[in-house]
Amino acid sequence: MQVTNVESIALEAKGTLTFSARLKAATGDGPGLCVGLDPLLERLPEKLRQSSEPLLSFNLEIIEATSEYASAYKPNLAFYELFGAAGWRQLEETIRAVPEGKVVIADGKRGDIGSTAKAYAAALFDGLGSDAATVNPYLGSDALDPFLQRQDKGAFILALTSNPGGSDLQQLISEGEPIYSHVIRLARGLNRLGNVGLVVGATRPEIWPEILPQAEDLPLLIPGVGAQGGGVAALKEALKSYPAPALVNASRSIIYASSGDDFKRAARDAARRLLDQLRS
Amino acid sequence: MQVTNVESIALEAKGTLTFSARLKAATGDGPGLCVGLDPLLERLPEKLRQSSEPLLSFNLEIIEATSEYASAYKPNLAFYELFGAAGWRQLEETIRAVPEGKVVIADGKRGDIGSTAKAYAAALFDGLGSDAATVNPYLGSDALDPFLQRQDKGAFILALTSNPGGSDLQQLISEGEPIYSHVIRLARGLNRLGNVGLVVGATRPEIWPEILPQAEDLPLLIPGVGAQGGGVAALKEALKSYPAPALVNASRSIIYASSGDDFKRAARDAARRLLDQLRS
Repeated sequence: MQVTNVESIALEAKGTLTFSARLKAATGDGPGLCVGLDPLLERLPEKLRQSSEPLLSFNLEIIEATSEYASAYKPNLAFYELFGAAGWRQLEETIRAVPEGKVVIADGKRGDIGSTAKAYAAALFDGLGSDAATVNPYLGSDALDPFLQRQDKGAFILALTSNPGGSDLQQLISEGEPIYSHVIRLARGLNRLGNVGLVVGATRPEIWPEILPQAEDLPLLIPGVGAQGGGVAALKEALKSYPAPALVNASRSIIYASSGDDFKRAARDAARRLLDQLRS
Repeated sequence: MQVTNVESIALEAKGTLTFSARLKAATGDGPGLCVGLDPLLERLPEKLRQSSEPLLSFNLEIIEATSEYASAYKPNLAFYELFGAAGWRQLEETIRAVPEGKVVIADGKRGDIGSTAKAYAAALFDGLGSDAATVNPYLGSDALDPFLQRQDKGAFILALTSNPGGSDLQQLISEGEPIYSHVIRLARGLNRLGNVGLVVGATRPEIWPEILPQAEDLPLLIPGVGAQGGGVAALKEALKSYPAPALVNASRSIIYASSGDDFKRAARDAARRLLDQLRS
């Protein structure tokens, strides 16, 4: 569904892009690269581990190293919550440091009843200043709605995830269709403001011919390439005729490309290589 | 499934109760009351809103007022994340203030792939010091496992939730059974250390005769009474012959029982009344 002109104009008058326009601008013509910011203390370069704010110091370097190639950054909230209030502060500063024009996705996979979801949406969009959030569909539409009330903010709804247990529930068949297809239909129905996307893992490439027609024109966030082993070639082929923006996420394979002093250069090279593979 | 003696003895030797034993001790003979700590700034008594740490100040008063009747406290993480790092600090302090012997449930409904779930579990169990967490089953068993590795910590898995959208996915039928029944079976299979519970909402009382036999002997966390309108009488009747601990949660109907200067007394009265209704 398209955003209405009136609403777009109102946002533009305020100098704010719609989420849909921001995503399109960030990804350009091909699939875009999303860099997952999942800093684990024990995997950071020795020098940075001594910093008073190691997660932030690391992220600033990674963002600088990869911003030429990245359309989006996706901090995974778990790795910040691990450090409590200090971690949350480094998360806030990380998001503030992302250059203008990139999309920031707060990856928390939140999902709760309406009144709570409203608080989560405010925490992620207003508190952290992220452009989008990942959300879990298990609690249904009223748990997703609070993330979809604003045309300048978006939500990527988990459909089919990249982990082994993804099959436990997501691939159960109901009314002739897997549960993830029910989720995709639910997501399409919620896309009144053009701000709904889907999370679909890259570890099952055989699924693309089935899933992309169902997704129609919803933007995609695709984790699971790189460290999780999903195939880039199959993904690239599948996305060729897909009509909406797709963000391909890599976290560990980029940010930990080297644990030595050359980690910035290694991250930059890994980002460039993946983008080349996706676009060549 | 029972915890093994060897493991219990090992924990007891360290002075640590198993989660199962802690929960039984906290609930005693009947259903236990869980007080949801969901502080919303605009609903706090005027006087506390001026405090430098209003969420914490409010929680300390509520905990003191209700601890005679409560078996457990359940801070909902969304309401703290709303205030960023400052909110997280108040959450940490709130949990530290819960009296010995009560169960603390970090209500974040987390769910992510294994490596991320491990970080969430450490954040909630070690960072915050909670005894249990609520978790979302949509990503399947490897997303739940990291919360179930320690016999002294537990997880309540969302099965059937109390909100209107709960029916969107949870009640779809697959292989002759609703999705929530698949979740309950998955939960039972993961209960190797006796630390798995279920979240089942109280707003559909007709579901109890069907769901309790499926749950067998898993502890229950039951939201949806009070402000969400679930019937207490039907719940009490249903739980009479249930063989495992059940925590009945009320948040708004207790903590906002009055918004005036008498809020402590009102919260205390509301907690006592609900416990009386559940146990009389």
